[in-house]
Amino acid sequence: MRNITRDNITQAVIGSFGGAESERLRFVLSRLITHLHDFAREVELTPEEWKAGIDFLCRAGKISDDARNEFILASDILGLSSLVDLLQGAAGATERSNLGPFHAEGSPALPVGGDLIRSNDGEPVLVRGRVLDQAGAPILGAQLDFWQAAANGLYWQQDPQQPRYNLYGTLRADAQGRYAFTTIRPAPYNVPYDGPVGDLLRAGGRHAWRPAHFHFIVAADGYRPLTTELYFDDDRYLDADAVFGVRESLVLALGNGDAEDGRPYGLKPPFRVAQFDFRLDAE
Amino acid sequence: MRNITRDNITQAVIGSFGGAESERLRFVLSRLITHLHDFAREVELTPEEWKAGIDFLCRAGKISDDARNEFILASDILGLSSLVDLLQGAAGATERSNLGPFHAEGSPALPVGGDLIRSNDGEPVLVRGRVLDQAGAPILGAQLDFWQAAANGLYWQQDPQQPRYNLYGTLRADAQGRYAFTTIRPAPYNVPYDGPVGDLLRAGGRHAWRPAHFHFIVAADGYRPLTTELYFDDDRYLDADAVFGVRESLVLALGNGDAEDGRPYGLKPPFRVAQFDFRLDAE
Repeated sequence: MRNITRDNITQAVIGSFGGAESERLRFVLSRLITHLHDFAREVELTPEEWKAGIDFLCRAGKISDDARNEFILASDILGLSSLVDLLQGAAGATERSNLGPFHAEGSPALPVGGDLIRSNDGEPVLVRGRVLDQAGAPILGAQLDFWQAAANGLYWQQDPQQPRYNLYGTLRADAQGRYAFTTIRPAPYNVPYDGPVGDLLRAGGRHAWRPAHFHFIVAADGYRPLTTELYFDDDRYLDADAVFGVRESLVLALGNGDAEDGRPYGLKPPFRVAQFDFRLDAE
Repeated sequence: MRNITRDNITQAVIGSFGGAESERLRFVLSRLITHLHDFAREVELTPEEWKAGIDFLCRAGKISDDARNEFILASDILGLSSLVDLLQGAAGATERSNLGPFHAEGSPALPVGGDLIRSNDGEPVLVRGRVLDQAGAPILGAQLDFWQAAANGLYWQQDPQQPRYNLYGTLRADAQGRYAFTTIRPAPYNVPYDGPVGDLLRAGGRHAWRPAHFHFIVAADGYRPLTTELYFDDDRYLDADAVFGVRESLVLALGNGDAEDGRPYGLKPPFRVAQFDFRLDAE
């Protein structure tokens, strides 16, 4: 179209994608273009603001590498990652939460009841529960992939003092769907704030803290893999998570373990108990 | 907030920026977040689609450098750059169009009536007109910065066969606001399509062509600088510009120059005449 105006440009751009083979792509692009243009019109976006947005993306590209993804971080702090998780929710299934940037492939396998504490300082925690289906029946042999930060708030990838795969492990639920392992309580931490996302947080009057959490991917044949996080009910950042990952149903009240609880794991009081049953939705 | 849901997350994210010092930033972010979330909810954006979007941005970051900006190109082919230009429009002033990626600082100064043809092949064109204010009065000594592609569709930065600053120049309008110079008619060309934007164009059933154009930045003290492009009324891509830069008011009907027209410039027929008066809006 040669007579492009502020009022017809949106239809012109949507129309230009009319030849896309994928109906889904046409639909997604038409909504993306509509919202992008409506945003620009509503705020009367200036060339200087447009340039600032382009510069933000360029800086995010420059600071990203195999170990850091500033675009995911931007999606996180704008709540988009969390919203995508929420849209995946299924009745009767555990709520989903952010994957985050620290998941690692190849975490070592633990036996049921295995130990991740080893040389770590921090409050010992016995983590245990079951993997169930939406109806509450145990799922046999579900696979759990677990990772967390240490008591200093750092993941092993960020901290040369920690051994590789420190506080990371995979385990298989038993024939009753039960899992258990021992670890330490992690600490809250900051998302990286030395890049453009950090500048946006500062300009927006925001902090970069996340509440402490355990991270899980739970998978079993015939069920949708579940990526989620478990939080602690006394965490000061529960209501101010920089990435909006907290769900009320994922907040744990830690119990105090007694001698009998600890015996199978070689743990002596004082230690805490984190009990949580995962529920997977069928594919 | 710990009880984040798909319905309250948008207000939670907007609220997190409530401490921003800049009222404008709060407003722009609130509309950006609203549209981003509404988009995700409306299309029920899947984790795979979210990941495809993140990968698009990562690839755009990797392919961008000082000489290429894939984020600007993405903004261009989604019509956002053009919309921002259109939002800047002022009554009685020349319409704006895309800056594009090929503007160069430091183009050599030409006298009024100067020549850019030199060793270039292609149809000679005498470009002439005036620089006026919104009321039609001449602006004395306005500065014009001009650039174009060669007859092969390439800018000098893309083509080692062309001398530096080939078909680029700056000139000053005279005391009656008049400007004139000689050049050749440029050719249509493709925007770069070897990156993620190219993949999107292909998936969307789109081509990468732009109609041929002259590019200008016209500036004068007390007026807003004008970035715009002039097109040719017989161009096959006028109604299908990959970046939506065409405006009806910027399309030239080229005349045929006669001997008298050409004499001051050392041009002999056949040659074409492109006549255009720029109108700047006061700051």
